[in-house]
Amino acid sequence: MKVNLNHQLNDPQTKGVEILSIGTELLLGNIVNSNAQWISEELSALGVNHFRQSTIGDNYTRISKLIKEISLRSNLLITTGGLGPTPDDLTTEAIAKSFNTALFERKYLWAEIKKKVSVSSSTLGTSSLKKQCFFPKEAQIINNPRGTAPGMIWEPKKGFTILTFPGVPSEMKAMWKETAVDYIKKNFSDGYIFFSNTLKFAGIGESAVSEKIDNLLKLKNPTVAPYANLGEVKLRITARAKNEFEAKNLIKPVKDKLKKEFSKYIFGEDDDDLSSVLIKELRKRKESFGFAESCTGGLLSSTITKVSGSSQVFKGSIISYSNELKQSLLNIPEHLIQKYGAVSEEIAQNMAINAKEKLNVDWSIAISGIAGPNGGTKEKPVGLVYISIAGPNDHITNLKKIFGSTRNRVEIQRLSVNVCLNSLRLILLSNSK
Amino acid sequence: MKVNLNHQLNDPQTKGVEILSIGTELLLGNIVNSNAQWISEELSALGVNHFRQSTIGDNYTRISKLIKEISLRSNLLITTGGLGPTPDDLTTEAIAKSFNTALFERKYLWAEIKKKVSVSSSTLGTSSLKKQCFFPKEAQIINNPRGTAPGMIWEPKKGFTILTFPGVPSEMKAMWKETAVDYIKKNFSDGYIFFSNTLKFAGIGESAVSEKIDNLLKLKNPTVAPYANLGEVKLRITARAKNEFEAKNLIKPVKDKLKKEFSKYIFGEDDDDLSSVLIKELRKRKESFGFAESCTGGLLSSTITKVSGSSQVFKGSIISYSNELKQSLLNIPEHLIQKYGAVSEEIAQNMAINAKEKLNVDWSIAISGIAGPNGGTKEKPVGLVYISIAGPNDHITNLKKIFGSTRNRVEIQRLSVNVCLNSLRLILLSNSK
Repeated sequence: MKVNLNHQLNDPQTKGVEILSIGTELLLGNIVNSNAQWISEELSALGVNHFRQSTIGDNYTRISKLIKEISLRSNLLITTGGLGPTPDDLTTEAIAKSFNTALFERKYLWAEIKKKVSVSSSTLGTSSLKKQCFFPKEAQIINNPRGTAPGMIWEPKKGFTILTFPGVPSEMKAMWKETAVDYIKKNFSDGYIFFSNTLKFAGIGESAVSEKIDNLLKLKNPTVAPYANLGEVKLRITARAKNEFEAKNLIKPVKDKLKKEFSKYIFGEDDDDLSSVLIKELRKRKESFGFAESCTGGLLSSTITKVSGSSQVFKGSIISYSNELKQSLLNIPEHLIQKYGAVSEEIAQNMAINAKEKLNVDWSIAISGIAGPNGGTKEKPVGLVYISIAGPNDHITNLKKIFGSTRNRVEIQRLSVNVCLNSLRLILLSNSK
Repeated sequence: MKVNLNHQLNDPQTKGVEILSIGTELLLGNIVNSNAQWISEELSALGVNHFRQSTIGDNYTRISKLIKEISLRSNLLITTGGLGPTPDDLTTEAIAKSFNTALFERKYLWAEIKKKVSVSSSTLGTSSLKKQCFFPKEAQIINNPRGTAPGMIWEPKKGFTILTFPGVPSEMKAMWKETAVDYIKKNFSDGYIFFSNTLKFAGIGESAVSEKIDNLLKLKNPTVAPYANLGEVKLRITARAKNEFEAKNLIKPVKDKLKKEFSKYIFGEDDDDLSSVLIKELRKRKESFGFAESCTGGLLSSTITKVSGSSQVFKGSIISYSNELKQSLLNIPEHLIQKYGAVSEEIAQNMAINAKEKLNVDWSIAISGIAGPNGGTKEKPVGLVYISIAGPNDHITNLKKIFGSTRNRVEIQRLSVNVCLNSLRLILLSNSK
């Protein structure tokens, strides 16, 4: 079976791929459907047309009816959920019922499952687990390297195939990568792939980016699509081509144009984030850094230490949340705090200079502000943040930001962290070593 | 129209409510469908039966066909997305097409929209915005207090009503609360509500909780459902009743049983988290705290400072990520680090004792471990974490945790933070003031 799913994108008569998420917890709103998003992204990358998604509860008749319905309009159905051992797990049975097919035990699977659960076997009813060994006769098994519930690839009728996965994201993803990717490539791709390259921006808003590239946003191949999320703007360039090489060739001129237009606003690509880019740059320069945090209360440090390898350049921080600790740990004189207030350019600058010395680092960032929701005044409103960066040769950069009182506490903290990281990145750029 | 949606929950012939999410970005996997989750949760709380969700791209014919299909099997359809001014926004037109209905301009809406965009009107084509004023004649408008795109409540045929909302979550939620909640209560509820109360657990796994309450998990009203997420276990007790008072009466005996069974493992309810509970307890005791963090690199501090009001009890931290700073900021003798290694009970305990003094706090928590993925050895594997808590009257508690090498860096950091917070909570419980 080799079906062309990529043609006539806008013809509703074209068959395609559907995703069906099974689980009452989704209908109750207990969890967000991250599986559907993840699979959608994978399908885009594989270049197969995916037209529709459905979500249904753990109800035998409803599942069975819906699968029958999907089999009339699609070539390929990917299901997640309902493969486990409990009475609520009904997916395989319901699928079989849709096509009046019986289920048969696969003895080797039972042996495998028993091995997998050997440790805690006493607490598991063998009868319920055994359910996971039953499949239609012609179904091909998708091995589950991370759990006990296998999935299947089954073509119950000509031109319609079902792939089943468990609802646990880590199991689903491992099985997808091990089995589904190659299967879909081989059977459902028309030879074209979609390939994306994402440019990441900092220090510029989505509308400012979009306005400048009106013409690029209208391109058909590659397409250029903007995304924005709390201080971070991304442009995803997606090409449809015979292979990655051709796709990259389509993407390159657009990317070059964007890099020329936005130069230093672009901090990285794809999986880069501000912290990883900054750590990389400091490693290259063989320089270290550390922080004196007040209103961000550790978020700046933890954003850096999330990155593996950060210990090569990050030495540590002083979280001086109280004025008392600004004095005792950072040697900020009490009279200065009384004169200017803890949230001021003067205090931030003193924090940066003293932190640089106390932490014995090449670069220090200090931050003092009002994250709210309380503590704001008319002169110093919620969202007011002072940032100071101290570096080699008495370098000092002072910044004042007003994030606006419509932002909540955590947003103000996160935006402050972004500004800190991006500011140091820009300083390093203009102080090349 | 007053339709009972709550009866015969498992009869697939029962009509109910459906959610339709419209947007090609969902099919491409660019964003996760958080709107569907939010609305599902709202529908649960309203006690209406919600059987199915669909997602479709920005394609006129496909949307129109799908809406026709849904109108044959449901009483109420809630759509999100596709109400904006761009050519991709097709929801209202496609719905009208499903029922061969024309759209008419509402002049007062155009006046309102013009007022809303006055600031940036120059950059917006008026013709595209005008689209947002066109609705079927009989449709009732849902005012959008946060944006320009209104929604509608429309009953295109007897027994089938459509509610439309924009895809922007903040707009959708504001409109839902202002208009939809009352409308659904009045027209689609059978007078019963669902009311939930969630108990939160720490220091115990999901399976250990589930095993002990096998009988409670089988209850029908209220139902008891377990959820687990990286070191946190929740039990949601949901009652169906005439009103909140009755629901609470149904929930109370189950809750009492659980509190008796699990006592100190239950740290809070509903919106509580470990940090807010701990801050509340310290405020009550008029005690302060601070940290000496190594492997968590600021995450423990930032977990506390996310909570508004934390400054009343949290004074600050020393993030001694390097051994050098463990010596200079926390006075840990170099020979001790050489003798035991930075990741050891001895160093963690010294960090806690010295941090208590340096930060001048009543309670200090120190943490030193190997978050990975590198830096592990056979004796000290990735996931090994030492925690020490120092308190009044020379109180010292030392803990050793091995989180296992299958956990990634951020998971090990987050689990460590949970253990720190829960351990101090338990210490406070047994050291009542």
